[in-house]
Amino acid sequence: MKTIQRADIDDARTILAAARQAATEMNVPVCIAICDEAGDLIAFERMEGAKASSAEIAIDKAFTAASTRKGTHELANAAQPGQPAYGVWTAANGRFMIIAGGIPIFHADTVIGAIGVSSGTPDQDREIAQTAAREWAAQNP
Amino acid sequence: MKTIQRADIDDARTILAAARQAATEMNVPVCIAICDEAGDLIAFERMEGAKASSAEIAIDKAFTAASTRKGTHELANAAQPGQPAYGVWTAANGRFMIIAGGIPIFHADTVIGAIGVSSGTPDQDREIAQTAAREWAAQNP
Amino acid sequence: MKTIQRADIDDARTILAAARQAATEMNVPVCIAICDEAGDLIAFERMEGAKASSAEIAIDKAFTAASTRKGTHELANAAQPGQPAYGVWTAANGRFMIIAGGIPIFHADTVIGAIGVSSGTPDQDREIAQTAAREWAAQNP
Amino acid sequence: MKTIQRADIDDARTILAAARQAATEMNVPVCIAICDEAGDLIAFERMEGAKASSAEIAIDKAFTAASTRKGTHELANAAQPGQPAYGVWTAANGRFMIIAGGIPIFHADTVIGAIGVSSGTPDQDREIAQTAAREWAAQNP
Repeated sequence: MKTIQRADIDDARTILAAARQAATEMNVPVCIAICDEAGDLIAFERMEGAKASSAEIAIDKAFTAASTRKGTHELANAAQPGQPAYGVWTAANGRFMIIAGGIPIFHADTVIGAIGVSSGTPDQDREIAQTAAREWAAQNP
Repeated sequence: MKTIQRADIDDARTILAAARQAATEMNVPVCIAICDEAGDLIAFERMEGAKASSAEIAIDKAFTAASTRKGTHELANAAQPGQPAYGVWTAANGRFMIIAGGIPIFHADTVIGAIGVSSGTPDQDREIAQTAAREWAAQNP
Repeated sequence: MKTIQRADIDDARTILAAARQAATEMNVPVCIAICDEAGDLIAFERMEGAKASSAEIAIDKAFTAASTRKGTHELANAAQPGQPAYGVWTAANGRFMIIAGGIPIFHADTVIGAIGVSSGTPDQDREIAQTAAREWAAQNP
Repeated sequence: MKTIQRADIDDARTILAAARQAATEMNVPVCIAICDEAGDLIAFERMEGAKASSAEIAIDKAFTAASTRKGTHELANAAQPGQPAYGVWTAANGRFMIIAGGIPIFHADTVIGAIGVSSGTPDQDREIAQTAAREWAAQNP
């Protein structure tokens, strides 16, 4: 057996609140999903004005970031035509989402969960997710 | 055009908190999903100890209750062998969930959203969902 | 709760008729789908001679335009290799359709539904959809 | 954060070897899947003579047992017509497998993984899985 560390509901709420605040400051309503290190959803909110169809995209960005231990923007690069991960979007029954906005949450070099943000531009989604991840990391050194 | 009323993020948080409290009092950790009247997810939490696989089930129970304007326990009856809705579980690409625990939220005889609860027994899930729906209705006459 | 406006069956028939007329004048038989602002289908017709497989494509174009609040031709651009939405086609269980021909219907800056057209060339589909959307907007200032 | 225990590759090999030996003694070639507590596959073998289509079934039995923290034969009962979990087979995109042969692996009352066996009769599959689970438990008190 091995022992692993995993985000719990308190972590999820903390990360979600940080993302919501960053989105509010940027005036970009978004869907925010927090999952554990296995990619399973812990908490989710769709802010007023965010697109309903972005809910699943946010959840899948979080799943993909936890699963691959990478920001989804890195996958976007690796999945371009001619690049090694070209075609990776079919993985996990089509749940792999290669658009920026999914960010893994690390603790001591290990992924303990991930955040996925969607409904803004991919750059905005990524900034919100990274801000939330950074704040959690600062509070959990 | 027509004008409809729909649960917003504040409603979702209120209903989710009521469900969480009911679950805590019953000592049954559950996944709780709140969706709008179109079945699109607004808010979700997986309580500490609830099964990860119940996340999707809770979301789909909420979707099914909003979509059918019925508690999922009513569908369970209608979908028994020999009954008229036998086989309905394939609907919406398999998202129709006919196990108790999904309850529509009504306002003035109109569905404005739904709650889905999963990880307890179906009876427990239903009781938690109904308690939350009843509390919201009492606060929004 | 919040109040939203949504296309009803009369709007759907008006938009569908306008699209049919535009298609007839262009001599391009098409599938025409009208959905509400949540992406759920309200009305559909496959004109004599239109491809049967275009039915689902038209429905998904309407769904995508309503969901993203954008014409699907804009998504076609944003989803090119190297662009920010590259990979978005997997969203909503593969229902996101990024080919021209899906157009959201706006009323006072809010999406109240969408039209999807398919079976012609993407440019023809888009022209038919835009003509119908424009006519409805002119009648509903 | 929370700390959890999870089957590792050594556990998976031990459980798989015990299942293979039980199957050999019963002269029933089977597919054997071992997953971790999140339902993700760790090890798999298809014995000579086992049905190829049983591979996915074994994997899904293990997934279901880990996810529900129950033997899949218990779900078979709970999902009968008129029973509370009737309809549960659609869960997880249809991956919930309610046929006997999936057994969770417990350590100190916590699920740390699961085994799924398929290709024999459901009773044989269950016996092989339970034998393997029992042996691992005896070695890991």
